Amino acid sequence: MALHEISTPAALIDVSRMRRNIHRMQQRMNALGVRFRPHVKTTKCLQVVSEQIDAGAKGITVSTLKEAEQFFAAGIRDIVYAVGMAPSKLGQAHALRQKGCDLKILADSVACAEAIVRFGKAHGEVFEVWIEIDVDGHRSGIKPEDDTLIAIGRTLTDGGMRLGGVLAHAGSSYDFDNDEDLSKIAEQERAGTVRAATRLRTAGLPCAVVSIGSTPTALVATNLEGVTEVRAGVYVTFDLVMHNIGVTTIDEIALSVLTTVIGHQEEKGWIIVDAGWMAMSRDTGTKRQKQDFGYGAVCNVDGEALGGYRIVGTNQEHGIVERMGGDDKNIVERFPIGSMLRILPNHACATGAQHPTYYALQEDGSVHAWPRFYGW
Amino acid sequence: MALHEISTPAALIDVSRMRRNIHRMQQRMNALGVRFRPHVKTTKCLQVVSEQIDAGAKGITVSTLKEAEQFFAAGIRDIVYAVGMAPSKLGQAHALRQKGCDLKILADSVACAEAIVRFGKAHGEVFEVWIEIDVDGHRSGIKPEDDTLIAIGRTLTDGGMRLGGVLAHAGSSYDFDNDEDLSKIAEQERAGTVRAATRLRTAGLPCAVVSIGSTPTALVATNLEGVTEVRAGVYVTFDLVMHNIGVTTIDEIALSVLTTVIGHQEEKGWIIVDAGWMAMSRDTGTKRQKQDFGYGAVCNVDGEALGGYRIVGTNQEHGIVERMGGDDKNIVERFPIGSMLRILPNHACATGAQHPTYYALQEDGSVHAWPRFYGW
Repeated sequence: MALHEISTPAALIDVSRMRRNIHRMQQRMNALGVRFRPHVKTTKCLQVVSEQIDAGAKGITVSTLKEAEQFFAAGIRDIVYAVGMAPSKLGQAHALRQKGCDLKILADSVACAEAIVRFGKAHGEVFEVWIEIDVDGHRSGIKPEDDTLIAIGRTLTDGGMRLGGVLAHAGSSYDFDNDEDLSKIAEQERAGTVRAATRLRTAGLPCAVVSIGSTPTALVATNLEGVTEVRAGVYVTFDLVMHNIGVTTIDEIALSVLTTVIGHQEEKGWIIVDAGWMAMSRDTGTKRQKQDFGYGAVCNVDGEALGGYRIVGTNQEHGIVERMGGDDKNIVERFPIGSMLRILPNHACATGAQHPTYYALQEDGSVHAWPRFYGW
Repeated sequence: MALHEISTPAALIDVSRMRRNIHRMQQRMNALGVRFRPHVKTTKCLQVVSEQIDAGAKGITVSTLKEAEQFFAAGIRDIVYAVGMAPSKLGQAHALRQKGCDLKILADSVACAEAIVRFGKAHGEVFEVWIEIDVDGHRSGIKPEDDTLIAIGRTLTDGGMRLGGVLAHAGSSYDFDNDEDLSKIAEQERAGTVRAATRLRTAGLPCAVVSIGSTPTALVATNLEGVTEVRAGVYVTFDLVMHNIGVTTIDEIALSVLTTVIGHQEEKGWIIVDAGWMAMSRDTGTKRQKQDFGYGAVCNVDGEALGGYRIVGTNQEHGIVERMGGDDKNIVERFPIGSMLRILPNHACATGAQHPTYYALQEDGSVHAWPRFYGW
């Protein structure tokens, strides 16, 4: 298949860019002496994850048990489900472990730990549980100095479960855009998680794994003392949010949406394309950053950014492309009906999720369909 | 299946609410003496669309050719593809027509009309084409007084295609929230589209169909003189955006996302649920309306709104629920780990699109899985 044969809108992966991104991260982690466990929620695509594993990743991180099931079926055993465990999902986790999946689950409350212990005892299952640590107040987890940390650990070990370690994600790293701030939040993520591990160990509890990570902190951290593994997801393709944060250039972004021009409103300078929010997602994550790309930045069909053009508005299957600053001439001739463009996404995880298939564009110009799954 | 057996997050349809919404719209259209052609992009679900057809709908509107293919395979012949035709998709449209689908396509430029004529002549296909009319400047279409309107009509008829009618969608109706403004935009939609039809007929061109519609304008219009059919989509479930516009009460909203409490940040008043943006979509459409519901309004598991609770932040598989105004007490006891909630969506089309299945909750409490499709 060639690019012009793809029905639009379609999610394109530039394979050589993706490989560069994979190797950049893996080489960093190798140099820092930690295991790297990619978060596969970004692509949910076996072909992508196989490249991450082949490059040196050890195990994967998932955001749903469906991801765990799909990737375990494809042969990956070492999996962390990095969302606080719902008691109603313990049966699904148990079934995976029974089949031989080395699935790790999370707890950040005594109530959750108790539910895991109750289920584990009732079903003869020794779950491996990691405790989620809150290093920046952005979402879930137990603060490193909180006494509940020790209470969760004791509940699990006294209840016969395996306390495997601690896990944190400095999601607030997305709020920064310079190396100094990013380095600070990276150190905060490291130090807080290591501190939690130390407190558990001092209390006589096991804590083999110290797992941290986000794409920005993983890419700026220089000291990972006490850390055993790092997790990151969106680095595999990057996106415009990551570009605004400062960890990627525009031309390293490996995901784009191929689209076709279907109309114009010439006096307004609008080019209408068939990539609406269904193809781009409703993510407008660059709006609160230093450069607002609307629903995406426009490239020509070869993937070269057309500086200033972005999708300023979307309906379900319509995108409105406009040049920043407006006052655009000859758009009907420059972007004729039927011509193709590529749109870089704000958020690769959200845009990818809208598509059943990635079209993997190889260096020789050929295209292969790589399926991705969705749902729970 | 019963509600508590569903794995969360999951998209729930309250079937009795849905049926009331379907009948409310159909009865209005019957009383106004026009055909009603639902837009099936909202649900992409055969069980829902079958109820719309059974209630009296004539034909359907689609936003993708995949929808046309899926619903044609299920026995629906009369289909309008309501997005400007990309020349590269003419082969797909042709294949559908060859199989017996009465597919209508759109044009809003001479260039598009010429591409249709070229393809039609080359393949011996007489496409039925409707001209898209711009009644409010919100997106695509030709203004009723624009001379291009006649040029498109002549290009099509001179080229041997069938000019079937005109079509408009007053998408800007979503910007209003009172009957007076909505009535004005409804009349603007009607008058502009009828005017375009009259101009075509005066020029000696055929224009059998005058098709208009959006959920808000369809629900406030009282005069549809000259209109032959109305289209609307989101009325079938409604959502919080429609509630803010004023065309539905909260307890008529038929779509919600079932979710499980997975954690708390007690001192912040946060309840963490397993409905993140993957389950809700990234749509924050109520942000610019009179009441901002964040990523969704919280109901108890029986579907009764808990006034003031909303999802204030999301990550991929995490939602942060907070009471408006903050200062919430006893959340750990009131919303224990493992308890279920339902979240009403801002935008039913966007939220539905995130889910492979609707769980249809019947009046007797039983639940049936209704598949929905996605992609292009």
